[in-house]
Amino acid sequence: MSTEAPAAAIRDQVHATARLAREASISLATATRLAKDAALLAAADALVADTDRIVAANELDVEAARDGGTGEHVLDRLRLDPARVAAFAQGVRDVAALPDPIGEVVRGSVLPNGLRLTQVRVPMGVIGMIYEGRPNVTADAAAICLKAGSAVVLRGSASAARSNEVIVEVMRAAIEKAGLPADLISLLPSADRASATELMRARGLVDLVIPRGGAGLIRTVVEESTVPVIETGTGNCHVYVDAEADLEMALAIVVNAKTHRTSVCNAAESLLVHRDVAEAFLPRVVAALREHDVVIHGDAAFQAVDPAVTEATDEDYATEYLDLEISAKVVDSVDDAITHVRRFSSGHTEAIVTASARTARRFTLGVDSAAVMVNASTRFTDGGEFGFGAEIGISTQKLHARGPMGLTEMTTTTYVVEGDGHVR
Amino acid sequence: MSTEAPAAAIRDQVHATARLAREASISLATATRLAKDAALLAAADALVADTDRIVAANELDVEAARDGGTGEHVLDRLRLDPARVAAFAQGVRDVAALPDPIGEVVRGSVLPNGLRLTQVRVPMGVIGMIYEGRPNVTADAAAICLKAGSAVVLRGSASAARSNEVIVEVMRAAIEKAGLPADLISLLPSADRASATELMRARGLVDLVIPRGGAGLIRTVVEESTVPVIETGTGNCHVYVDAEADLEMALAIVVNAKTHRTSVCNAAESLLVHRDVAEAFLPRVVAALREHDVVIHGDAAFQAVDPAVTEATDEDYATEYLDLEISAKVVDSVDDAITHVRRFSSGHTEAIVTASARTARRFTLGVDSAAVMVNASTRFTDGGEFGFGAEIGISTQKLHARGPMGLTEMTTTTYVVEGDGHVR
Repeated sequence: MSTEAPAAAIRDQVHATARLAREASISLATATRLAKDAALLAAADALVADTDRIVAANELDVEAARDGGTGEHVLDRLRLDPARVAAFAQGVRDVAALPDPIGEVVRGSVLPNGLRLTQVRVPMGVIGMIYEGRPNVTADAAAICLKAGSAVVLRGSASAARSNEVIVEVMRAAIEKAGLPADLISLLPSADRASATELMRARGLVDLVIPRGGAGLIRTVVEESTVPVIETGTGNCHVYVDAEADLEMALAIVVNAKTHRTSVCNAAESLLVHRDVAEAFLPRVVAALREHDVVIHGDAAFQAVDPAVTEATDEDYATEYLDLEISAKVVDSVDDAITHVRRFSSGHTEAIVTASARTARRFTLGVDSAAVMVNASTRFTDGGEFGFGAEIGISTQKLHARGPMGLTEMTTTTYVVEGDGHVR
Repeated sequence: MSTEAPAAAIRDQVHATARLAREASISLATATRLAKDAALLAAADALVADTDRIVAANELDVEAARDGGTGEHVLDRLRLDPARVAAFAQGVRDVAALPDPIGEVVRGSVLPNGLRLTQVRVPMGVIGMIYEGRPNVTADAAAICLKAGSAVVLRGSASAARSNEVIVEVMRAAIEKAGLPADLISLLPSADRASATELMRARGLVDLVIPRGGAGLIRTVVEESTVPVIETGTGNCHVYVDAEADLEMALAIVVNAKTHRTSVCNAAESLLVHRDVAEAFLPRVVAALREHDVVIHGDAAFQAVDPAVTEATDEDYATEYLDLEISAKVVDSVDDAITHVRRFSSGHTEAIVTASARTARRFTLGVDSAAVMVNASTRFTDGGEFGFGAEIGISTQKLHARGPMGLTEMTTTTYVVEGDGHVR
């Protein structure tokens, strides 16, 4: 009984928060772009003005994490300084500058019976965000959801609790002063796992849940949620170097995709090389990767090039290292490459390097991922690079949104049908 | 242990079927429209040619259902005769005649760095359909999924098992003869509930599950599925008669929406009338509905008009009757109507009857449903009426698809990014 009481209390709190968010979202559905942008700019100004409070709260988070034994790498992701606060405040301003997706006519026509049919973009309603790590996601997600006409219920990580509380408090006060309901942005307690569980089971109160974080978090949300979910972020991305590749280009792309930034979901994790160019390419690519301190797990052909290459297992081929590590394999054909990718990929991004239009076409149609790069680095799968202006995550599922998600992907549509007494 | 063995056997069977479907779907992703249409036309011809076998199998289903105590109304939905077989065979031909959604460019641009970005419509992969009742859904769903480039795994109701088996057998043989893999269309056993459960939990093997049937089925799938789901069909649809309504028009729309066909999801289930026109309208609408044998559950104002009107409870307002029954209430304003609709609607279709552009706009923006009719019957929310040519169901959720779903809604997209050695 003693464990039941707090669980019920957390459920009540989550439901109460979601109800307030839903109430607030109703007024936002008819808010003008001017009203939304004014609130976002006010929130950005307030974040900058309250930098000291945000940084002070963050210092407590960082200290607690350090005392808890968190490593310096993770501490750095958690840490805020005035420059980082200014950066995410600017991110909020950037969202304000984007076109309003609400009201966009997606399609329209006059039906044979004279009914006028219009499919219009409308807000989602209430969006739940369950995320780990960096507190900048708090401001980003709140700004994107607000601009897209939805209320957001945030559930960040316990390690960033104090930072998130202050960021949300500052943004709530600012948008309220600007004339929008504060409850458009709310934060759930993060000390207890139950708040996340209740959020993803608040079907009817919450329209969409987006998990953003490690594979474990995402798996949990997908398994347990009854609210519709958009899965994000896991990126076991491949680069396939074809028989007809420009090997100079291939080398640059492989090195960039693997080493430019290792901790991101669009970094390459696996290298496939066509047998016809293995002899020429393997020594060069192995040397270049080793020069960047990349640990290589390869098949026999790769191991033959350099004794430092360890044997790749199926587990390696399935792993998203997010580090200076890569799996590597020689394949007999583009179809072999496609089969390998279909088996091991997480469906994020694959790249092919080839001069052959036919092979590029075959690979593009053959793999089944959110993005396919032809003669370009996997690192380009990104809302900013794609010109979306803002990104709330990268969807690796097929339903609703696939690839980088911007404002449009945070909306739904409705059909408006205008008649003059039409009956069937 | 004895209950575990069959459960595991069913799981293995579902997974094996889904794997074959996935394998088959890979070849379909690159099949031309010509190849797909030829297979569909062959399937339609085969269904007609095998009408006798289909009807004979169906007779066994109908007999078994009758022996089990199924009522005549439901038996009629289950029953197939040569005309009904011809009708769904024609439906398959109609799908063949529709444009191919695969390969459509959704958006495209050249990025500032010269990368060419194209978002292209591609197949979903493997679609699971869990449905009740009428065996014509089997042919419809198979045709739509095939045309949209996906394999389908069907799980129909036990009552239609023999009919479905023959329909699927005939279609499989026909598409295989036309050069496509038979495993694009498969049917799971329906005797055991476990086959449905395993299908909705086959995440990674199945890309999307669509439940089509009663509220109980849909709730179960939403609760238990780990595969992404599109919720369909529940329609607690409202007609709101505004103070500025043309009452003649309002009467025609209410009667049509309620009585034209009662067992469908776009039939009206609830009537809201503005107080200013209650005195003039209530006696007329009550008389007209009673003339069509509609049972009315109303508030005090409706009860005052006719003693046969019973008192409406909140449960009535929440009920999708699917019969000659309606709930009814007088409201003080359009905002009152919106609040009532937001509270009780299932998010399918709402209609407003008004001569006021301002009120129509307010209602349209205020309710939160897949479709809003202005001066037209709720009965128009339908893929056929909307000109989609084919419909696999009507989505009442906000994610991915909302409202009638045609071929486009059965696809996903991928980003193809073409460069010339681009790195970041």
